[in-house]
Amino acid sequence: MNREFELIDRLCKKLSAPSKKVFLGIGDDAAVLEPISGKILLTVDALVEGIHFDFSFCAPKEVGKKSLAVNVSDIVAMGGKPLAALISLGVSNDVSEAALEQIYEGIADFAQAHSIDVVGGNVTSSPERLMLSVTLLGEAQNRPLTRSGACEGDVVFISGTLGEAAAGLFLLKREGRKVRSRFPKLTSRYLTPQARTDLVGLLTSEKRVHSLIDVSDGLSSELWHLAKASKVGFLIEEDKIPVSEELRKASQETKQSLRNWQLSGGEDYELLGTCSPTDWLLLKEEAQRAGGAFTQIGSVVSFSRGVLLKDSSGRENPISPSGWNHLSPSERD
Amino acid sequence: MNREFELIDRLCKKLSAPSKKVFLGIGDDAAVLEPISGKILLTVDALVEGIHFDFSFCAPKEVGKKSLAVNVSDIVAMGGKPLAALISLGVSNDVSEAALEQIYEGIADFAQAHSIDVVGGNVTSSPERLMLSVTLLGEAQNRPLTRSGACEGDVVFISGTLGEAAAGLFLLKREGRKVRSRFPKLTSRYLTPQARTDLVGLLTSEKRVHSLIDVSDGLSSELWHLAKASKVGFLIEEDKIPVSEELRKASQETKQSLRNWQLSGGEDYELLGTCSPTDWLLLKEEAQRAGGAFTQIGSVVSFSRGVLLKDSSGRENPISPSGWNHLSPSERD
Repeated sequence: MNREFELIDRLCKKLSAPSKKVFLGIGDDAAVLEPISGKILLTVDALVEGIHFDFSFCAPKEVGKKSLAVNVSDIVAMGGKPLAALISLGVSNDVSEAALEQIYEGIADFAQAHSIDVVGGNVTSSPERLMLSVTLLGEAQNRPLTRSGACEGDVVFISGTLGEAAAGLFLLKREGRKVRSRFPKLTSRYLTPQARTDLVGLLTSEKRVHSLIDVSDGLSSELWHLAKASKVGFLIEEDKIPVSEELRKASQETKQSLRNWQLSGGEDYELLGTCSPTDWLLLKEEAQRAGGAFTQIGSVVSFSRGVLLKDSSGRENPISPSGWNHLSPSERD
Repeated sequence: MNREFELIDRLCKKLSAPSKKVFLGIGDDAAVLEPISGKILLTVDALVEGIHFDFSFCAPKEVGKKSLAVNVSDIVAMGGKPLAALISLGVSNDVSEAALEQIYEGIADFAQAHSIDVVGGNVTSSPERLMLSVTLLGEAQNRPLTRSGACEGDVVFISGTLGEAAAGLFLLKREGRKVRSRFPKLTSRYLTPQARTDLVGLLTSEKRVHSLIDVSDGLSSELWHLAKASKVGFLIEEDKIPVSEELRKASQETKQSLRNWQLSGGEDYELLGTCSPTDWLLLKEEAQRAGGAFTQIGSVVSFSRGVLLKDSSGRENPISPSGWNHLSPSERD
């Protein structure tokens, strides 16, 4: 009779009890959170079946985790702490209720690991494709880290390694889930990305980071976002972009361009930022002590120079903002 | 090259400049709002093409307005004031960019009329159906008005009139947009619902309202929500449910059950609440002075009695929570 409400009840049972930050969680017209002292951060990101994930090689629980991770990454990229999430679910005709429950288990796991309260949501029908649009509310106790503060002469740094999620996706599409055993790191970078919540403390202590963004659409695209917001250019040194052994192996085996994965692949959810050369030395040292590596990959130059990639021969090639485009030409005309 | 970002730019141009409440609006990894003193309200609701609206009889601008209105109604039903919205848009293959711009014009109009800042969003592809999932953040300066405070002996009241949106939808489906001239009120109740922001002040002044919910799924469904949350029953008097002249005319012309529209129709976005009989007299009088009418439609009884509808002969019939179900049997198995 009331399948919608029954389903909601069953899915909500997967979630943890709300924390003290929550005055009223799931079950009323709106969730109610206790006031927070810092600035409020708000972001939303959606995963659509067949566009952002494919059940033939993504487990439902992974999809649930990822739906939250991509949003946590946005809050982290503002120097914030995630607090509360809303899940807007479009249920496809094909998905089983067991799969829906697994998606919510994934959401619950990721939420618990990052002290996020899932405080509400919406369930509707989306006949052809499952959709998960997740809203995340966070808090910035310090000055938010925006895209617009990069200065000429700044060091450009990146956390972790790039290109792995794109390579993982390529391998999963080509060989299915069995490829996970040969390429465990690349495939999990794609299937279960981790937002860099571990680095927020380092980046927000003192006023040292000038600009910050997370790498969701690809390095070239994110560099252009920073360039436009800060009115600066970038000179990136190709040889300095960190490459993992597994990525090198995948590139050799598949004859795919490693640089293409790194520049346009997207979904790395690493942090790309800029700071003064003096602060860079401090930041790098502190990050090493804390176990999270940052690498300098270039420097900030004038806006008129655009975004440039210097290859090993010293030649500077302009790079376009061709990060991963969610509306590909085949989908939009 | 970067159609997604170009489209986002074009849609954002439709929106008004952010107010002082917004530290940083659209264009970074997350929006940043200045701290608010009251409790934070959060809600999300999605409209899916072919499920919640049909472009054959809904204008894109109306869809935009409605996507915000249904969320404002949820914030109002908590006794809150809407502040900021995020728009998660799934772009179908069929929709024109002109239609998308009109949707955003509708969002912008409704936002401006209610002093809401649209601070961010997400655009993705949703090939078969346009989807609009809107998140709304609001503020409750006073005690939030929940579903759980109804007490035995309370008066049950409703704002405005019920069943009109459902009748409007029925007529639009049967006759298309030309029916608007014959049934202007019913069709606009469906196409461009108005959340009862005009009544929030009355309901939150002093501690007089015991429970409150908005009528989105239909009266019977909402009564059951209140019943379960408050552990009470309801005795509703059929003859007291307000009926507009236009609704009566539509029922006579179409031979459709007026009571069915009123009990199960949904999408009225009126407010259903309870308060003590003493406070009811005050509330009714104040509401009349303010131009917004509340009508007593019954009283709160014990949980064991369930939800009952008393007909004109005095017979009490149990009513089921069969409000409008977004996952109808034809869509889910």
